[in-house]
Amino acid sequence: MSSPHASPSHDCLLRTAQGGVVTLTLNQPERFNALSETMLEALQAALDNIIQDEHVRCVVLAANGKAFCAGHDLKQMRANPDKAYYQALFARCGKVMQSLVHFPVPVIAKVQGIATAAGCQLVASCDLAVAASSARFAVSGINVGLFCSTPAVALSRNVPRKRAMEMLLTGEFISADTAAEWGLINRVAAEGELDAEVEALTASLCAKSAVAVRTGKAMFARQLAMPLDEAYVFAGDTMACNMLADDVAEGIDAFIEKRPPQWQHR
Amino acid sequence: MSSPHASPSHDCLLRTAQGGVVTLTLNQPERFNALSETMLEALQAALDNIIQDEHVRCVVLAANGKAFCAGHDLKQMRANPDKAYYQALFARCGKVMQSLVHFPVPVIAKVQGIATAAGCQLVASCDLAVAASSARFAVSGINVGLFCSTPAVALSRNVPRKRAMEMLLTGEFISADTAAEWGLINRVAAEGELDAEVEALTASLCAKSAVAVRTGKAMFARQLAMPLDEAYVFAGDTMACNMLADDVAEGIDAFIEKRPPQWQHR
Amino acid sequence: MSSPHASPSHDCLLRTAQGGVVTLTLNQPERFNALSETMLEALQAALDNIIQDEHVRCVVLAANGKAFCAGHDLKQMRANPDKAYYQALFARCGKVMQSLVHFPVPVIAKVQGIATAAGCQLVASCDLAVAASSARFAVSGINVGLFCSTPAVALSRNVPRKRAMEMLLTGEFISADTAAEWGLINRVAAEGELDAEVEALTASLCAKSAVAVRTGKAMFARQLAMPLDEAYVFAGDTMACNMLADDVAEGIDAFIEKRPPQWQHR
Repeated sequence: MSSPHASPSHDCLLRTAQGGVVTLTLNQPERFNALSETMLEALQAALDNIIQDEHVRCVVLAANGKAFCAGHDLKQMRANPDKAYYQALFARCGKVMQSLVHFPVPVIAKVQGIATAAGCQLVASCDLAVAASSARFAVSGINVGLFCSTPAVALSRNVPRKRAMEMLLTGEFISADTAAEWGLINRVAAEGELDAEVEALTASLCAKSAVAVRTGKAMFARQLAMPLDEAYVFAGDTMACNMLADDVAEGIDAFIEKRPPQWQHR
Repeated sequence: MSSPHASPSHDCLLRTAQGGVVTLTLNQPERFNALSETMLEALQAALDNIIQDEHVRCVVLAANGKAFCAGHDLKQMRANPDKAYYQALFARCGKVMQSLVHFPVPVIAKVQGIATAAGCQLVASCDLAVAASSARFAVSGINVGLFCSTPAVALSRNVPRKRAMEMLLTGEFISADTAAEWGLINRVAAEGELDAEVEALTASLCAKSAVAVRTGKAMFARQLAMPLDEAYVFAGDTMACNMLADDVAEGIDAFIEKRPPQWQHR
Repeated sequence: MSSPHASPSHDCLLRTAQGGVVTLTLNQPERFNALSETMLEALQAALDNIIQDEHVRCVVLAANGKAFCAGHDLKQMRANPDKAYYQALFARCGKVMQSLVHFPVPVIAKVQGIATAAGCQLVASCDLAVAASSARFAVSGINVGLFCSTPAVALSRNVPRKRAMEMLLTGEFISADTAAEWGLINRVAAEGELDAEVEALTASLCAKSAVAVRTGKAMFARQLAMPLDEAYVFAGDTMACNMLADDVAEGIDAFIEKRPPQWQHR
């Protein structure tokens, strides 16, 4: 996994926090926020660090510039024509994507501009996604002779298979509206409303019980990979544990008494 | 699985039958048809009983009152703060849901009003669902600090994952039209047309060969859980058996002779 | 697998090739292009033959006449009331369908008229599908007492489960627009534009690197059947191999130099 480019610079990824919401902002707009080795390392390091903070309620993955993320850094890849290098690179990238899937709190993609190849995979790997109405999505590796194999893993678990296959084989862009119709993203923000739309969503998540949100994030992807009967055993045990949290007693009491709940864990 | 509330009263669940269609009606409108222990036992008992009747063609799961079903009985749950109690409760509920999935004939949810939490899970667990245009759906446990883990099992097998996750994390309602768009339900009935729409669907099912319908229900969920090659072996064997039924000979003859078929097994 | 009808006649299936696009045309319009033993054998033989041609870029599966394909040959099935015969027939059909799924290049269904039962399964088994706006789709075996069990395998892997179940239990037709909405097909061609729409798609595929397209086709269905972590290992290795192809070096160079790529393998 080592490489001449491996010394991490975190300038490429900005991190801000407000009221439990951590925002990670891809910050190499002049490179279309490509997932270079440095960027992947910065993302992994940030996620590994945030995971230790029990007060974090959700993560927003955003980007500066005209592109959300244009995928891998093609120049860097071209400069390292070595199979072991590529395997290490894709393993590192796959680890970042799976870190998002298994992250203990929800991760929301906030998408402006284009999200292509591994950039589209980033969106697919988040739990929720909000996009500007002008955002566009493609898995366009096919246009340079490189089928988007690892993006296909995430994309094909978000949209129906013929739609995934069409995007992967043609490399064509789809609009934000189409992405919402197909299930790749949740919401399309009107012109100028992307910040407000994401804030509405993070405010909604922050108003919930932290125990409940973390419980849900931890069980959702796992149960989906299980046969139905196993999924029910696992979900039943998970829900029984969740029931014992102080927040649930308070939540039910508040519901019965028709008042807002006062969560313990914020 | 025993509890102080376990003595079943079947008044909470009405049962009527007409021409092969059994309708089970949740009948505790004042409690929003909550899935109390009593209601779950009544549902399980009714399903276990109907399963023995070879003349049943399909089951309609309906409800009286302004709510279809508001999920678990929060007061009852709050009154029993015990992990073993919750495990038993969710196991019982999971058994009802899986009984629907594996029931020998199709089960149709007929939804008016709200279907929330385990009530939404009931809808997701049926084979088909028709809803009034004013019906609304949510998995709203998150609002009382309890992530809808067991409803997530059914919901995430009906709608794309980002949509399931949004519903589970925000607890927000979706309309009947949105539920139909997302695949949670099949049809939306115009104002005042819910009975007629469900009757049209049950009439369609009752006009089919009973052998064919039961064959289909028995194989569908099973094959979906298999790898493609195994699914084809299983489906091919199933279809070869189905071919030997008298109904198929009659069905093909009637088709060739351009007349309505006369099924043997009604 | 032998039968009195087994001597293959390839007249029922036409084959043309142009610029790397092989078109297979079901050519028994008077029989609604039913998947008789002969037709299934002709399809299997054609696929087994084309698979050896490294210059093929994609396959179009088309049909002559008013129907795309009406499924199995009911008269032939009725004339052979024997379980072993049916098992062999469905095994042969399942092999054709899986040959499409695992074919080394993309297969595009070009659908006019009706696609019913195993004809609908053919469409579902292709990678991409384009249909005339007047095309209609059904899994209508239920109407002759025969649940479309093997078509269900393909259909339920294309559209959400409640929609698949509704089609299978009611046998009702859906329009091309509905099929596109549900993900069964990719594109609907306006009246008289079916040829042009399919040609646009095949031209798009032929303009890509052959290595990339074959890599993608080979990995897509396989990774979809794997757990997420295994899928990422497999996809990462696949993509690392793909990176070593001469086409990728050329593709990236062309991209950087803002010129069209010159692929080596056409």
